Amino acid sequence: MGTEGMDEASNMKVVLKHYITGSAQETDMLLTAGTMKLKAPKDSNAVVLKNLFLSCDPDMIFKMTGHKREHCDPYTLGSPLTGYGVGKVLDSANPEFAVDDLVWGITGWEEYSLISDTKYLMKIQRTDVPLSYYTGILGMPGMTAYVGFYEHCTPKKGDYVFVSGACGAVGQLLGQFAKLHGCHVVGCAGNPDTVDLLKKKFGFDDAFNYRQEPDYDATLKKYCSEGIDVYFDIVGGKMLDAVLLNLRPHGRVVMCGMISQYHLEHPDGILNLPSMVTKEAQIQGYLSVNYYHLYPKFLEIILPLIKESKVAYVEDVADGLETAPKVLVGIINGLNIGKKVVAVDHH
Amino acid sequence: MGTEGMDEASNMKVVLKHYITGSAQETDMLLTAGTMKLKAPKDSNAVVLKNLFLSCDPDMIFKMTGHKREHCDPYTLGSPLTGYGVGKVLDSANPEFAVDDLVWGITGWEEYSLISDTKYLMKIQRTDVPLSYYTGILGMPGMTAYVGFYEHCTPKKGDYVFVSGACGAVGQLLGQFAKLHGCHVVGCAGNPDTVDLLKKKFGFDDAFNYRQEPDYDATLKKYCSEGIDVYFDIVGGKMLDAVLLNLRPHGRVVMCGMISQYHLEHPDGILNLPSMVTKEAQIQGYLSVNYYHLYPKFLEIILPLIKESKVAYVEDVADGLETAPKVLVGIINGLNIGKKVVAVDHH
Repeated sequence: MGTEGMDEASNMKVVLKHYITGSAQETDMLLTAGTMKLKAPKDSNAVVLKNLFLSCDPDMIFKMTGHKREHCDPYTLGSPLTGYGVGKVLDSANPEFAVDDLVWGITGWEEYSLISDTKYLMKIQRTDVPLSYYTGILGMPGMTAYVGFYEHCTPKKGDYVFVSGACGAVGQLLGQFAKLHGCHVVGCAGNPDTVDLLKKKFGFDDAFNYRQEPDYDATLKKYCSEGIDVYFDIVGGKMLDAVLLNLRPHGRVVMCGMISQYHLEHPDGILNLPSMVTKEAQIQGYLSVNYYHLYPKFLEIILPLIKESKVAYVEDVADGLETAPKVLVGIINGLNIGKKVVAVDHH
Repeated sequence: MGTEGMDEASNMKVVLKHYITGSAQETDMLLTAGTMKLKAPKDSNAVVLKNLFLSCDPDMIFKMTGHKREHCDPYTLGSPLTGYGVGKVLDSANPEFAVDDLVWGITGWEEYSLISDTKYLMKIQRTDVPLSYYTGILGMPGMTAYVGFYEHCTPKKGDYVFVSGACGAVGQLLGQFAKLHGCHVVGCAGNPDTVDLLKKKFGFDDAFNYRQEPDYDATLKKYCSEGIDVYFDIVGGKMLDAVLLNLRPHGRVVMCGMISQYHLEHPDGILNLPSMVTKEAQIQGYLSVNYYHLYPKFLEIILPLIKESKVAYVEDVADGLETAPKVLVGIINGLNIGKKVVAVDHH
């Protein structure tokens, strides 16, 4: 159904019913129909978006817990979830955005969104790649991998690199950057198919399914037998603790998130920091939204790599907003094969 | 009683009776008399030392637990404890050391020591300062403060610096380096007299007694109300966890040890690492023995500062080897006022 020229449209949303404790369930969210005016208020800087693709990201689970954290406010009950997405501008009161512009950035889990604060919207200039890529390899996850590897990992050729959450949008790209840099790369993921993908599609030297490993320390001693120079940490918790025991001298841990901890009421205590003294090891946290100024530079590097098939990218696209609650819950359980995206409308 | 020319001398030692669990007690050690040949074996690289001063250092407690850790083997039961000390060479089979040389480095908790591995012995060139200083401000603790502050803290004028274990040999010097650098410095220590010393003698901007603070997070919010740019961490554990919540953006934690954890069978789990992501914070461990090459440069800096009274140094010297077990246990309980040293012989 076309929407152009319509003043008001029906608008399906995914809203949070209640704050979660324990694991997120599909039933914690509700699909609900509303209506929306497709006009941006004249005296605002707002734009109205038709949402095309929505990204499923682990920190969304954290926002469902109702716990506050810097830069990460909980979702508002009864309102649509928010997250990264790709959309098309239907109306704009903002001189920086015109009707029919394609954008990526923070939007709502609904068919149409009124975006009042456009600070986190980026205009899409290149459309000779799938638009959904702007939720992943060409969006914030791609930037997270780029900034993490090149700004923080201080990689050297021959370094032993270990990546957790390796089949997500960040991990798969980071591992490939490390391979292009001449590092030895091992990854872990949450199911046998993704472990296969890491080795066969993304060129990791080795990979394992952490769900089948009862003793992470022993596992790392097997898969990373030379020790670890660089650990790119997406999960935190027990895997981080085991890595600390397996770092090589001057080993670095670069931390962009802690997926394994977001849904826990009592996070895992990290016991092995003392080993950082004797190893002269480093842990560095970073937040990729602070590096937006590097986005043009990143695109210059990543677009040719995609075009020349020097990096692979695997998405797992679910069709329809109505699938969104189920697929979001699935990423925490490691069910996605590659970056999980919900196609609201294929444009 | 003079020893020169004697082939064999009686030799009082402090030996470990059994590996400890829980807190160290005076009764875990035994004073025992032996004899010792005061000649270095001709076909060795050994030296025979008359020990003058012995340093009481927190990591000695860890070696009493019997737990292994890299670069830190447990003590051998029935043998003298080892640690940093100052001694005089009585005999030498090593061309680098001559009779009557004064040295500092790793020696035994006994009157005389045969040092077979002289790798960790440094010749003392300057004797216009108290010899005991080479167990502290002019020895490994001084180097630890120097390397920690100038090689790892990346300090800037105006930075908010917090130091734990602030009245020990490392902490008192690090805090003074930070003040000389134009930082705002807060320290914590384990008794009211040392807190006084921090403020009145070492020029810290503020200080508190951590034993009187039930909620470290609240305490830090009070004493470090602007947040913390640099935390120099000697203690680890719960204080580190609270600091992580109080770091400023791009805050750094520099870690040279974890005094609070050495005697614990189950170390404290660190819960607040996730906050490092949003703050883009860093933790860096280091081991000062890896920086021996900087020792001459350090002496060039520290000796004038001592001579010109630009840094203060407070020692707490106990007299006689027989006091050693008691004073070693005391440092873990925060009973020392300044760097704790045992004078075996005043030379």
